[in-house]
Amino acid sequence: MNTKSKFFSIALIGLAFNAHAVQSTVGTSHDISYPKGWQNWATVAVSHRIDNNTLRTILGNNIAIKAMRSGQTNPWPDGAVLAKVVWKQKHSEEWDDAIVPAKFVHAEFMFKDSVKYKSTHGWGWARWVGMEQKPFNKGTSVCISCHTPVSNNDWVFTAPAILPKD
Amino acid sequence: MNTKSKFFSIALIGLAFNAHAVQSTVGTSHDISYPKGWQNWATVAVSHRIDNNTLRTILGNNIAIKAMRSGQTNPWPDGAVLAKVVWKQKHSEEWDDAIVPAKFVHAEFMFKDSVKYKSTHGWGWARWVGMEQKPFNKGTSVCISCHTPVSNNDWVFTAPAILPKD
Repeated sequence: MNTKSKFFSIALIGLAFNAHAVQSTVGTSHDISYPKGWQNWATVAVSHRIDNNTLRTILGNNIAIKAMRSGQTNPWPDGAVLAKVVWKQKHSEEWDDAIVPAKFVHAEFMFKDSVKYKSTHGWGWARWVGMEQKPFNKGTSVCISCHTPVSNNDWVFTAPAILPKD
Repeated sequence: MNTKSKFFSIALIGLAFNAHAVQSTVGTSHDISYPKGWQNWATVAVSHRIDNNTLRTILGNNIAIKAMRSGQTNPWPDGAVLAKVVWKQKHSEEWDDAIVPAKFVHAEFMFKDSVKYKSTHGWGWARWVGMEQKPFNKGTSVCISCHTPVSNNDWVFTAPAILPKD
């Protein structure tokens, strides 16, 4: 393969890996850019909050998933991003004893950077609300106050679900 | 780019996209090969079955996710694969009113191929049990009998969860 062809090969592979890394038109939340493509991230865990009748899936970017699978989650490594995706609940129309997602509520994110976010416990805290993904900008203290009970768990509620190795 | 170089480019892109499509040492379930890498698939929905105290996430391969996002789910297209990942439930140690995954139970799969699996309603049915992913081979009638109530929904219980577009 000649030099020009090699360049094309590498460029095309780059495109293949970065197909989702495009700019978003959604605004920033607490100065954090929208992590476009989070809907494609792999699963960290799921949960059902019976105090507010919501179902959740917790997803992770590649760094978070790699960290989870190698047990590096206290602290999580810089670059890890966790997404908590929240729906109101309802009973399945097909199986009444199954609780399933109804209306989408919001997607909440924690972005780990121990230097950049040192003043907020090593995490950037962000939330985009509703189907229109409206940025939440009422201050990170809203997020942090709720997460204080897990300050010893690198401020993360989620314990990664146990799964067979991939 | 010459013909040989083009071939290399295409081959390399193919490798990039199929990094997880490697052979598994796990045995077949109902003559279906283990879909190695399913832990990285994107989310279709989640559920909590309160009749048997299990939490689930329902994942999809790329064809299933594309179909879900374009509303092509009755019937699902050939090539779609759905995974139902099941855990026993427990209360979160950090937040008692959150139900979270405990022991991993099994991963169940539906492989859509309207020709190959015509005799089993267009789906191949498979299950791998426990952390060792032991193949289930007690016959597809076990699967199909439970799914009969959703025969009008292409035999699928799961309604894709509503999410903002990626």
